[in-house]
Amino acid sequence: SRTLSLAVIPGDGIGPEVVTEGLKVLSSVLPQDVKLETKDYDFGAKRYHATGQTLTDDDLEQLTAHDAILLGAIGDPSVPSGVLERGFLLKLRFAFDHHVNLRPSKLYPGVGTPLAGSPEIDFVVVREGTEGPYTGNGGTIRTGTPHEVATEVSLNTAYGIERVVRDAYERAQARPRKKLTLVHKNNVLVHAGRLWTRIFEAVGAEYPDVTTDYLHVDAATIFLTTQPERFDVIVTDNLFGDIITDLAAAVSGGIGVAASGNINPGRTFPSMFEPVHGSAPDIAGQSKADPTATVLSVALLLRHLGYEAEAARIEAAVQADLAERAGRPARSTVEIGDALAARVSA
Amino acid sequence: SRTLSLAVIPGDGIGPEVVTEGLKVLSSVLPQDVKLETKDYDFGAKRYHATGQTLTDDDLEQLTAHDAILLGAIGDPSVPSGVLERGFLLKLRFAFDHHVNLRPSKLYPGVGTPLAGSPEIDFVVVREGTEGPYTGNGGTIRTGTPHEVATEVSLNTAYGIERVVRDAYERAQARPRKKLTLVHKNNVLVHAGRLWTRIFEAVGAEYPDVTTDYLHVDAATIFLTTQPERFDVIVTDNLFGDIITDLAAAVSGGIGVAASGNINPGRTFPSMFEPVHGSAPDIAGQSKADPTATVLSVALLLRHLGYEAEAARIEAAVQADLAERAGRPARSTVEIGDALAARVSA
Ligand SMILES: CC(C)[C@H](C(=O)O)[C@@H](O)C(=O)O
Ligand SMILES: CC(C)[C@H](C(=O)O)[C@@H](O)C(=O)O
Repeated sequence: SRTLSLAVIPGDGIGPEVVTEGLKVLSSVLPQDVKLETKDYDFGAKRYHATGQTLTDDDLEQLTAHDAILLGAIGDPSVPSGVLERGFLLKLRFAFDHHVNLRPSKLYPGVGTPLAGSPEIDFVVVREGTEGPYTGNGGTIRTGTPHEVATEVSLNTAYGIERVVRDAYERAQARPRKKLTLVHKNNVLVHAGRLWTRIFEAVGAEYPDVTTDYLHVDAATIFLTTQPERFDVIVTDNLFGDIITDLAAAVSGGIGVAASGNINPGRTFPSMFEPVHGSAPDIAGQSKADPTATVLSVALLLRHLGYEAEAARIEAAVQADLAERAGRPARSTVEIGDALAARVSA
Repeated sequence: SRTLSLAVIPGDGIGPEVVTEGLKVLSSVLPQDVKLETKDYDFGAKRYHATGQTLTDDDLEQLTAHDAILLGAIGDPSVPSGVLERGFLLKLRFAFDHHVNLRPSKLYPGVGTPLAGSPEIDFVVVREGTEGPYTGNGGTIRTGTPHEVATEVSLNTAYGIERVVRDAYERAQARPRKKLTLVHKNNVLVHAGRLWTRIFEAVGAEYPDVTTDYLHVDAATIFLTTQPERFDVIVTDNLFGDIITDLAAAVSGGIGVAASGNINPGRTFPSMFEPVHGSAPDIAGQSKADPTATVLSVALLLRHLGYEAEAARIEAAVQADLAERAGRPARSTVEIGDALAARVSA
């Protein structure tokens, strides 16, 4: 019999509620011969306030023992902006070399979108996760004075770009439309832009069956709202990816259904899966949060670990559940989780 | 009698067509006692191919003699990406210290939007124009090899931020809703983020009647599609401004109506006004381009030079013209220009 060892980080706000439902669906979908072992970790605002710690070397050491990590949400207004983001979320991405941030956008039938008409939306963004302007490089001089100067340095390496671009080509090749779009701003950010473009073209030569194109990030936001159906796979830099995946989530049903994986494709370290939404402290503890994004993140987790059939079953269950929602009264977090768990085990 | 001395840069693609209509409307709206003097400049792809020049010191010297600059569009696929952008557009912004990039977004009645429903959209983005990741700072090592490293350095100064933030507060204070939103990513780009936030709050103390809030740039893209009515004035960094103003244009009627000013508020150098759309070479010379964005840019130009009544007349004419468009056959560039010119002189 096999074992799936999972580090569970419920986190702050609605995190614990949605993670409970995610685990419920996971238990229901796993084959009988797979033993699910979970261990909870108390990262987040509470621990930060109690101990001043966000993520220690010992924590990282313990996390490495698991096959994957499931995260609810980290963040609370009581913690100064940036502390948990950099001290936990980014620290983990960098420590575990999560260089592929995978964010699928699919507008499921019956799901609301702010866009007019019913556009067909089914694409995935492959966002670089360990470089660009996210490295923390930069600083200030004359800090706090009228003569302060602050810099932010975007770091981009051929090594780092090549591996994420290759991952994106692989994903594009495995999809029916086989189309890959590079999003950057290579007419202004020329140093990084030339490097991204060169590698995008060089790696592309190895994937002659994948159609490619290029969009500046500003133009990409236009197409995401006016022609989202034109996208299949997008590969982009860390910051551009952050921005366009929130927009992508907004147009394809909202962050209530947006799943995300911070992936180390070579499995040198455990990958982490999480809903794109945050901790939403305003609705925490009221069973109002939609666990669908977490459940879809569980599907990404399963696919990453090789449980393709189980991942597909979850996605089919979500699709069916969403199709039935329209016009029905809102259900609680637990009700949605129960419904999805029932569907995947049926 | 007064003189308005205008540098006209028709530029590439549809540039000359839309500029012709912009000037037509300008001539019609100006009071009798104002003498309009225009001088054409041949910047753009043609001159680049003929001479290798984009914008020389002598050109800049000549341009300084004018009250303002009206630009159609610069850019052609025959010129490598980045050459005209950096060699002309950005060079001019930096040389003339165009630190306020003003981009109003208004969804006029009758105008199509990709958003469902009929959201009320009427906000203006004040984008910093001379700092951030646009300074060209950065470089590469081991260029062209598998070990290449490329950097982009975002430069942010208290001086540069303070002046654009102050400009945004002034504009917010002059509007009925008096609301100003700072858009940044201060939880990740902490060096620049802290500086922007500190100055935003410090200057805000001088404008107690202006309501303020803060959004991360990723969250801002969500609100721009789901609740655009929440925005009044937005102030943001050069790159974030580039991205969200294209999105803002997309949701508020498309780049066919998006106007823009690259402004030097102290008038040390002439400011430049231009439609947000590009040169659209695919429809050039066919009288298919909508000159409305250029005409609205002329309104911004007039307001900048103190012709408030004339600017308002142009905007009212555009509003009336757009309201009549629905269901009517498409008109040519010239027909739209004629209609607007007739309205403003009526
Ligand atoms: C919370 C923040 C650090 C994070 C990011 O910028 O990557 C978030 O916006 C995301 O997209 O996962
Ligand atoms: C053409 C390009 C240099 C420019 C920019 O990035 O500022 C354009 O996108 C804009 O928004 O005016």
